[in-house]
Amino acid sequence: MAANQEEVKLLGSVNSPFVCRVQIALKLKGIEYKFVEENLAIKSDELLKYNPVYKKVPVLVHNDKPISESLVILEYIDETWKQNPILPSDPYQRTLARFWSKFIDDKIVAASVKVIHTVNDVKERAKNVEESIEALRILENELKDKFFGGEEIGFVDIAAVFIAFWIPLIQDITGLQFFTAEKFPKLHKWSQEFLNHPIVKENIPPRDTLFAYFKAHYDSLIASK
Amino acid sequence: MAANQEEVKLLGSVNSPFVCRVQIALKLKGIEYKFVEENLAIKSDELLKYNPVYKKVPVLVHNDKPISESLVILEYIDETWKQNPILPSDPYQRTLARFWSKFIDDKIVAASVKVIHTVNDVKERAKNVEESIEALRILENELKDKFFGGEEIGFVDIAAVFIAFWIPLIQDITGLQFFTAEKFPKLHKWSQEFLNHPIVKENIPPRDTLFAYFKAHYDSLIASK
Repeated sequence: MAANQEEVKLLGSVNSPFVCRVQIALKLKGIEYKFVEENLAIKSDELLKYNPVYKKVPVLVHNDKPISESLVILEYIDETWKQNPILPSDPYQRTLARFWSKFIDDKIVAASVKVIHTVNDVKERAKNVEESIEALRILENELKDKFFGGEEIGFVDIAAVFIAFWIPLIQDITGLQFFTAEKFPKLHKWSQEFLNHPIVKENIPPRDTLFAYFKAHYDSLIASK
Repeated sequence: MAANQEEVKLLGSVNSPFVCRVQIALKLKGIEYKFVEENLAIKSDELLKYNPVYKKVPVLVHNDKPISESLVILEYIDETWKQNPILPSDPYQRTLARFWSKFIDDKIVAASVKVIHTVNDVKERAKNVEESIEALRILENELKDKFFGGEEIGFVDIAAVFIAFWIPLIQDITGLQFFTAEKFPKLHKWSQEFLNHPIVKENIPPRDTLFAYFKAHYDSLIASK
């Protein structure tokens, strides 16, 4: 299939930080794509066909070839469209980018999301907040430049969209302030710069809609106590 | 530093499937390295220096630059030493290799290891066995050739050393037979071919020693009931 006939489709959900990663990467590369909003309560036939293993978004479908798992998708995007690379060219720097992106998923996303779901368990919640803070502190010490990618945003910055946009949402919904400018001056400054980047700005979901969505979810968890 | 002065060191533990992955990859590439056995009960200063985030093995140290997380290390090895590639050259095939290796860690390793640790919880253990079987079944359906890498072993085969060598150990220790030739004919045949591969054979730890180690661990879990 010729380049100008490429079909790029993204099965996604506006609420998902993992989908947002893929949207930012595609836009950084200047790739046009069709966005298909999935209703995750009723999995579509297309989602079940393209991601039978996890049945989750995001799924990038490139010329009918499906790819799942957001960090795996980012690698594919960077290898397929070479313009505006998001991974460094040096093998060791590439390795560090992979390591820290995995760290964000394994340590920061995992613990912070649990802060919402442990609303009815004070002790467990305190543990998740503590784990989130500890992981954010480790990442704070890794930030040496304007962005993790240096002067331009790269792989780790894109993975960290969860920290810049979703963690403040979690804080506002739960009333717990664990990611603040006082505690994390460098990471907080980074998050402002990152959210103000033109490509990021236009690919971040509408805050009010997400707040309403997650607040409703949170309130239903409290009610189910 | 010139190529012939390269220093390659692996901090490891003979019990670890994640360390074994790195050993197989280095040997496939023909890279000489120094193996440093870590006692994980007493973390060495070197381990704390080179992997302050997770304090775990494996850590590959290449010319004093440390790399952690076994799948991240495999990517580094493949990018640094180009001979005998373990990832396919086609971007989509590379993506699939990354996807399935992550699947092995997230679904098969996670559930199978829990089978040991839930010895005192019949219900939870049955759930872990069931999850292991379900994940193995998905992988069984993905195996099309002699190896996941085709005619030669590649990234997914190396990641799957856990299935070939450690799952049978878990079975013998727990007396639970969930990965059998009857249930998984293709995957079982693959495991025999894989373990007989000359490079794999010489890098697999001694079975008797590992059996004794894990059995002692298992018995102490039962005793702590």
